[in-house]
Amino acid sequence: MQYLGIDIGGTKISIGIFTADGQMVASDSTLIEGRTGADVGALVLSFCDKVLSDNNIASDSELSIGVCIPGITYSKTGCVWAPNIPGWDNYPLYHELKGHYPQAVVTIESDRTCYILGEINMGGAKGCENAVFIAVGTGIGAGILVDGKILHGHSDIIGAIGWLALKPPYDKYWDQCGCFETHASGDGIAKQAHLFLQQDKGYSGELRNIPLEEVTSHHVFAAYDHGDPLATRVIDQAVEMWGMAAANLVSIFNPEMVIFGGGVFGPAASLIDRIYAEALKWAQPISIKQCKFVATQLPKMAGLYGAGGVAIQAMK
Amino acid sequence: MQYLGIDIGGTKISIGIFTADGQMVASDSTLIEGRTGADVGALVLSFCDKVLSDNNIASDSELSIGVCIPGITYSKTGCVWAPNIPGWDNYPLYHELKGHYPQAVVTIESDRTCYILGEINMGGAKGCENAVFIAVGTGIGAGILVDGKILHGHSDIIGAIGWLALKPPYDKYWDQCGCFETHASGDGIAKQAHLFLQQDKGYSGELRNIPLEEVTSHHVFAAYDHGDPLATRVIDQAVEMWGMAAANLVSIFNPEMVIFGGGVFGPAASLIDRIYAEALKWAQPISIKQCKFVATQLPKMAGLYGAGGVAIQAMK
Repeated sequence: MQYLGIDIGGTKISIGIFTADGQMVASDSTLIEGRTGADVGALVLSFCDKVLSDNNIASDSELSIGVCIPGITYSKTGCVWAPNIPGWDNYPLYHELKGHYPQAVVTIESDRTCYILGEINMGGAKGCENAVFIAVGTGIGAGILVDGKILHGHSDIIGAIGWLALKPPYDKYWDQCGCFETHASGDGIAKQAHLFLQQDKGYSGELRNIPLEEVTSHHVFAAYDHGDPLATRVIDQAVEMWGMAAANLVSIFNPEMVIFGGGVFGPAASLIDRIYAEALKWAQPISIKQCKFVATQLPKMAGLYGAGGVAIQAMK
Repeated sequence: MQYLGIDIGGTKISIGIFTADGQMVASDSTLIEGRTGADVGALVLSFCDKVLSDNNIASDSELSIGVCIPGITYSKTGCVWAPNIPGWDNYPLYHELKGHYPQAVVTIESDRTCYILGEINMGGAKGCENAVFIAVGTGIGAGILVDGKILHGHSDIIGAIGWLALKPPYDKYWDQCGCFETHASGDGIAKQAHLFLQQDKGYSGELRNIPLEEVTSHHVFAAYDHGDPLATRVIDQAVEMWGMAAANLVSIFNPEMVIFGGGVFGPAASLIDRIYAEALKWAQPISIKQCKFVATQLPKMAGLYGAGGVAIQAMK
């Protein structure tokens, strides 16, 4: 059995070959270069053939293929919605792969599901049967493993935690992205900083030196590290919300581990102790004491390792 | 195959015999009458024998036995924690039933898990693969079915939604029961009414005529129906929280249905449209539009029907 992980990003396709215990033994990537729709599908197949051939693997050998899609994968139809690839709003990716490699087990999952499977098979959650991955990047989502199984839900929109209701009463300001995401995603942190910069005329710290619309979450984290008061307000608010959201997932799922990853954790990994302290106040008291909060051990190539994790998990 | 449901309450044991499609064809119950520990276990077995015999079912015939425990069932050890039965804090109920009926499939679940399985097999959620049961009584908990499976979690403390974090900043007032439960369970609604009665000296409505400590959620619902302003404040607050909590479960699980039950829904069933309207503001917008909010169709004997549902589900 050969385990293949395919990570389909907005600009490139990466493929890794994995051992059953999660070691990546070879990898390669190719640029999408403006292709759209069926041309991207054709590129996936031809590049997959190339990687197999480069590694002396016959294309009709026993394969488990895992695919990471930054979007939604419709498990009942085998189609995917990938907003970063034009023409892939209901694309029959499963059927194309299965048509090309009829003997293969093909499994396609959303990026957040891939992250948790990468963590379970190759990262810090090895051996866990119950774990939640909180991915905080431009947006916020969760990958969820319960009783050793990945959840999908009625129409595969599982783990949409950016929409968590955390701060009544409802404010129309959250219509676009949801309450939690508007305050605590990468974009949300930037938005909150813009808001506070507009409101707080007396503030003259380092974020004032950057044109308002150009302030990003990275600037906010840097200013927070320097003790900047406005950045501290933004980050304190995000810590409270991350803690409440994590507490809610702990009370609902009783996991062994909550893993924080995505572009923001990175700079926010040092905040995990503060996030746990906040969650400890709110969550079901036995469950929270049984649960560890950690940063991802696979910050680089999480999608590719995740795709490999999907391929491995499919054969368990 | 015979399907047996056993509901173990604080004062009585009820047993029902069910068809594979969820019809209850016979039932009986017996009082616990102050028994504790192993004596309750012995009563379960002897009463079970009696019900089988009364219905001309051989005790060595093929049986699927489902048991409803108002507490926690430890799926890995087969022991149960049932706080309403003295001596059952880690009681080996699975092993006793399996010892007595070695040929039987024995499945023990917590009450909230039973409620959702009752609803899936005999109630309004027939055929659903993804549904959440929000049980609001003295406390609050959720039974969760995802992708056709019941969730257990690391140590079977799944669905502890009474602890949902919904209203920052944290208040020590919630230490005992959690933020959501303190505001919106039966006991919580009474507590909020007591608090408002103490604070609002100008109020002279109907709840003032009852000694403060005797005001229950039933009084509050009755006063709300008469347009009482203090009861309205309490119920409006509970509706906002039920809506937020339901929204969070919808965003996380993408279910087809959220079912409201337990002693409080009952009087609160007429509020479900308002709860949906609140949830609609907060939740993932596609998921909430795919989801129906309904009152339980099994308000009576939910535990017994739930136990039957467990027995049926175990053979699917």
